Amino acid sequence: MKNQFSFILILVFVLFTIYSCKNESTSIPDSEIINTSQEHPKLILTAQGVKDIRAQLGKIPIFDNTLAKVKEEIDAEIEAGIEVPIPKDYSGGYTHVRHKRNWVVLQQAGLLYQILDDEKYAKYVKNMLMQYEALYKTLPLHPKTRSYARGKLFWQCLNDSNWLVYVSQAYDCIYNYLSKEERNKLETNLFRPFADHISIDSPQFYQRVHNHSTWGNAAVGMIGLVMDDQELIDRALYGIKDLKLDAKAKDDDGGFLNKDGKAGFLANIEEPFSPDGYYNEGPYYQRYAMYPFLIFAEGLHNVKPELKIFEYKEGVLLKSINALLNLSDADGDFFPLNDGQKGMSYYNSALVTAVDISYHYGNQDPGLLSIAKEQNQVLLDDSGLAVALGIKNGKEEPFNKKSINLSDGPKGTQGGIAILRNQDIELVFKYAAQGSSHGHYDKLSYSLYERGEEVIQDYGLARFVNIEQKGGGNYLKENKTWAKQTIAHNTVTQNETSHFNAKYEVGSQHHSVLNYFSSENKNVQVASAKESNAYPGTEMLRTMAVINDEDFEKPYLIDIMKVTSDSPNQYDYPFYYFGQVLQTNFEYQTKETLKALGSKNGYQHLYLEASAKANSDNSKFSWFNNNKFYTLTTITNSNDEFLFARIGANDPEFNLRRDPALILRTKNSKDKTFVSVIESHGSYSPVSESAINSNSSIKDLEVVLDTEAYTAVHITNINGSTKLFITANKNASTETSHSVKINDKNYEWSGSYYFN
Amino acid sequence: MKNQFSFILILVFVLFTIYSCKNESTSIPDSEIINTSQEHPKLILTAQGVKDIRAQLGKIPIFDNTLAKVKEEIDAEIEAGIEVPIPKDYSGGYTHVRHKRNWVVLQQAGLLYQILDDEKYAKYVKNMLMQYEALYKTLPLHPKTRSYARGKLFWQCLNDSNWLVYVSQAYDCIYNYLSKEERNKLETNLFRPFADHISIDSPQFYQRVHNHSTWGNAAVGMIGLVMDDQELIDRALYGIKDLKLDAKAKDDDGGFLNKDGKAGFLANIEEPFSPDGYYNEGPYYQRYAMYPFLIFAEGLHNVKPELKIFEYKEGVLLKSINALLNLSDADGDFFPLNDGQKGMSYYNSALVTAVDISYHYGNQDPGLLSIAKEQNQVLLDDSGLAVALGIKNGKEEPFNKKSINLSDGPKGTQGGIAILRNQDIELVFKYAAQGSSHGHYDKLSYSLYERGEEVIQDYGLARFVNIEQKGGGNYLKENKTWAKQTIAHNTVTQNETSHFNAKYEVGSQHHSVLNYFSSENKNVQVASAKESNAYPGTEMLRTMAVINDEDFEKPYLIDIMKVTSDSPNQYDYPFYYFGQVLQTNFEYQTKETLKALGSKNGYQHLYLEASAKANSDNSKFSWFNNNKFYTLTTITNSNDEFLFARIGANDPEFNLRRDPALILRTKNSKDKTFVSVIESHGSYSPVSESAINSNSSIKDLEVVLDTEAYTAVHITNINGSTKLFITANKNASTETSHSVKINDKNYEWSGSYYFN
Repeated sequence: MKNQFSFILILVFVLFTIYSCKNESTSIPDSEIINTSQEHPKLILTAQGVKDIRAQLGKIPIFDNTLAKVKEEIDAEIEAGIEVPIPKDYSGGYTHVRHKRNWVVLQQAGLLYQILDDEKYAKYVKNMLMQYEALYKTLPLHPKTRSYARGKLFWQCLNDSNWLVYVSQAYDCIYNYLSKEERNKLETNLFRPFADHISIDSPQFYQRVHNHSTWGNAAVGMIGLVMDDQELIDRALYGIKDLKLDAKAKDDDGGFLNKDGKAGFLANIEEPFSPDGYYNEGPYYQRYAMYPFLIFAEGLHNVKPELKIFEYKEGVLLKSINALLNLSDADGDFFPLNDGQKGMSYYNSALVTAVDISYHYGNQDPGLLSIAKEQNQVLLDDSGLAVALGIKNGKEEPFNKKSINLSDGPKGTQGGIAILRNQDIELVFKYAAQGSSHGHYDKLSYSLYERGEEVIQDYGLARFVNIEQKGGGNYLKENKTWAKQTIAHNTVTQNETSHFNAKYEVGSQHHSVLNYFSSENKNVQVASAKESNAYPGTEMLRTMAVINDEDFEKPYLIDIMKVTSDSPNQYDYPFYYFGQVLQTNFEYQTKETLKALGSKNGYQHLYLEASAKANSDNSKFSWFNNNKFYTLTTITNSNDEFLFARIGANDPEFNLRRDPALILRTKNSKDKTFVSVIESHGSYSPVSESAINSNSSIKDLEVVLDTEAYTAVHITNINGSTKLFITANKNASTETSHSVKINDKNYEWSGSYYFN
Repeated sequence: MKNQFSFILILVFVLFTIYSCKNESTSIPDSEIINTSQEHPKLILTAQGVKDIRAQLGKIPIFDNTLAKVKEEIDAEIEAGIEVPIPKDYSGGYTHVRHKRNWVVLQQAGLLYQILDDEKYAKYVKNMLMQYEALYKTLPLHPKTRSYARGKLFWQCLNDSNWLVYVSQAYDCIYNYLSKEERNKLETNLFRPFADHISIDSPQFYQRVHNHSTWGNAAVGMIGLVMDDQELIDRALYGIKDLKLDAKAKDDDGGFLNKDGKAGFLANIEEPFSPDGYYNEGPYYQRYAMYPFLIFAEGLHNVKPELKIFEYKEGVLLKSINALLNLSDADGDFFPLNDGQKGMSYYNSALVTAVDISYHYGNQDPGLLSIAKEQNQVLLDDSGLAVALGIKNGKEEPFNKKSINLSDGPKGTQGGIAILRNQDIELVFKYAAQGSSHGHYDKLSYSLYERGEEVIQDYGLARFVNIEQKGGGNYLKENKTWAKQTIAHNTVTQNETSHFNAKYEVGSQHHSVLNYFSSENKNVQVASAKESNAYPGTEMLRTMAVINDEDFEKPYLIDIMKVTSDSPNQYDYPFYYFGQVLQTNFEYQTKETLKALGSKNGYQHLYLEASAKANSDNSKFSWFNNNKFYTLTTITNSNDEFLFARIGANDPEFNLRRDPALILRTKNSKDKTFVSVIESHGSYSPVSESAINSNSSIKDLEVVLDTEAYTAVHITNINGSTKLFITANKNASTETSHSVKINDKNYEWSGSYYFN
């Protein structure tokens, strides 16, 4: 078995070398390149890939199973007959769902034709494409008017582009099956006008740096590659020639349409990805954008290898896959940064593409195979074959996610995202740039996870994607009035206003700045960052550490938020916990009637359920969720109060979840250092009804030093042992030596922090 | 392998026969019986069982694994040393938890001594027992005063009894290891006074029909069996001789202490179990009571076979295990009828006992083996061996839960519980008696499940069992003010008062009455019952059907609640759904401030979030939970209104969950027939973001006939097909012939209902 595989590997390598050499080292006249690329399929599935796959069929379980499943689905579709309805609905509605299904069916039927060599699939693709041809030439703009760029098959150009990205692949697969006349008919009446509509006719959609445009670029480029149309390929790579858009115009989401004049696929790689591969809108949209990035790149790699697309910007496309996989929790669910819908995960089909392509075109990381195995499907193409063979040959290893710091911004200089991982605890700390039109106003916010469960949640977006009953499946107005506002996040809100006054133009000009990130010590993982622009005149420096301390059952989170201002303010500091209140060490009064906490900036959506005055140096709050115990210990003074809040006020259509929060509020403070520890501890079994370690292990938390240069915290365990954590608020580089006197004792160390 | 097993089976059979014959057919003088029963262990583990087990060790995986796990735990305990602290805490506190742990440790160490024949375990048990002996003789009543019957080791006699039930087994296991003097010391200073304290000194606990007493009886009886003390055995079986208690006194939970003067283990079998094996307090407490019932019965079977305890009351103990297993959802979680804590399941160790005993002493139902396999552990005794051998020999079959009707009451004449199962849908319909002191005021209420997930929930109890921070782990006051009240349940509340005015004395005198139960037709499962006493002058007849109709994706629920009264009333009819509101076909207005819906009877705990007037014949309400869609279609008129409520008002310690409800309210009605259909339909994937079948399939719901004798409902699907359901409101026996004219058409049938 192994020998056989080695042989194939060698064969593939030899063929690949020959092929590469042919294209790279010799100068071929244009006409000859055209001849080569006439050899369809060539885009995703290649002629050589088809040969290899056919030779392996029946011997590669995960590939065979995926194929069998796809075959079953497509056979059922063929049985059911073709439906190409006149466009009518928004997302979730019948015509939308049908056309969306058709693009999948077409692409898969095309693959089946090539892999199984059965004409019935080619015929089916041809017939459906002809129905689209007949329909498309009659179509006006889609009747629904809500989009800033209406499509023809769908209410938005975005979905039209999705369609073309997939259908290009189908067309490529049956290209040689069609007569020249048939191809001519489809290209003239369907593909070219389709490509023109989503680009030339919709520049506000196409000509920008945005995930929507990436789909548009890929759509135009992929059909261009199949049709061998250099003009379309150039339009895809570089944008619409000689077109300039209004730099101040905005889209539906409030994002600038094209502030910098950049456009085209390469600009879309250049701009949103940091050198670490972080995508500026966050993982949810990265996942969405990933597919066109990678599938078009794969097509370019196959048809235009001279572009070396996978090496573009130091190989950022493949790096971005690694970043994206790291932006998921223990269950593989992406952290819902910015407008992210919870539950989206690396089981999404776009990630099958990403993982397979990353494995095949990258360095065959065996960790990717374990994810591919969990995904339990592969692409039915060359890369899927490589993955299936890797799994078959038992090469997979666990994909170990570690603490990671991902820079943001095209050059990696606009803040970033730090993920601290320590045993089962994961902290996601956001000190990034605005995140384009899908960004939230949540500088220095965080969310906390344990084994894939949310401990302190980020709300995510206010939207039910593709559920028609909720605003047509689109963004709900509460996304703007609630989800994007600062108070909806686990960070400081000053004077009940959001960061940058929730002004996109202002927020887009700024980003937070890393103080330091340290993950070398596996027991002490720290990230620290500063924000100076969210509230002019106020600076926030947040240092978050996940510490595995032998005196505690599990790693705990230390959270130090140092706010300094040139004027007195009110600071609100929420904890979006889940579950039920267990105990507090302060007395609270519940309200008889529930009213909104404020009238704007998100406060109108919070009910005040109870309030309390802080009455000791350490305020403690325990809660219970999913049969686990959690305790917040936070340093307070008599000026502090607690608000028990619940989301859901002023929500006339029940669009928001009724989730709780505890808000620590300080009024009339210039400088305030919030210092907290969050412990996860113990467990409860409803079956044995036993509660284990249900109490906090912290006896005392104390700030022993807080200067411009250092903040130092004592954490005393109930067994009496005390640990000291000192963070350098500036000059925090690894090399710097520090010397601090606390309570007449000298502490000296090199590096960003001290812990002992 | 099989032959070997057959041989063992034959051997066991032969031995059993010999043993049975010896005890049943011959009349042995008392002294000889005493000699036989001196052969320790004899109680749960028997001398013969020990031999058999030792012979099989290493060959019976599930038994071996359980043994290895227990050994590891007990070895760690021995390593850690003995702790017998002076009693101090409530449930969840240190001394409580430690003594609780000790009883388990003692029992398991005893078993290990017998099975592994290693003296270290006997020594450990002996040493700990001696420490208990030293401590116990010094103990006053437990210092915590909250219980109606205080223990000595624990704050309540109940827990003292738990201790003795387990520790009797440990004592039996090391009986022969101890010297006569040692036994004498333990029996004189520990076991006998212990047994006396929980019985003679605590008659309010011991002398009644209640799960607490069952523990007490079993404790006294089991130590009596080990000590061969006939007086204790008699006290266990028949109660404290010649003692009569105040018939009107009540316990902590409001239950009568001893209304009828019945007491003892046999009375505790007689009274609470119906002939079908339903336990009147519901499955949560049955699970709790099960262990002493079965373990004492096993001991009696072994030591006093002449009592034929497993045949008592037509074998009700074994029947009750079958009933209990059927009172669980698809995940094995018990339905939270009455005071049931959610999450309790047949994975509880009491159910390991139940399943193993039922298999061994019952008819070796292979379905039980599949549950035992899921439980992944067996008893380390004769019955556990039988189960382990059954599994080893591949005898297990799936335990198929079907629709079942379980009568309530000692004679099965006090209403009951009907469970309708149809594919993944499970309906639990309660038309039982009060359910003793743990009963709720919820006549004709129901809860609805899909694959083990709650669709329409029953709240369960208001308690965090053994979580000390919440009221010491005991019942919270909201259990009485909320959880027991009628409005907390999915049934009709009249004039904002609970059934029987929430008076236990009144409720205890009544029960609902079955109209009919029909489960022969697998597509149409129906239960119908009547309640005439909850509100004097008002009758409620509820008919619930789970129907698998080819025009629908999944089985749906038809719910017909026919209320007739001799005076006009307000009726509230809630649906305790979970998740988020998707859509309604009526307009609702959300409230700016949230106030309690009422001031008493549970209404003080509901916030009113929104209200609406019904404005069409069919009101529709869709919601979304756990990625599934649900729609309620209910018949309304212009007199009806909807209230969107949420639990949590007047809850000063956040003891209640913030769960939602939709309440249909009719004012000023004498007669009202609520007719509803609840559909579960479609699904949503947050990974593929596709919504499937997200809309109701019901176009129209219409009552076409509603008389004293019949109610008939038309259900029209969106594809236009109409089904007719007619239920006989009286004379509903299977044999009765019916003839009804509806819209000039005659319908004739025999039986309880018509569906076509």
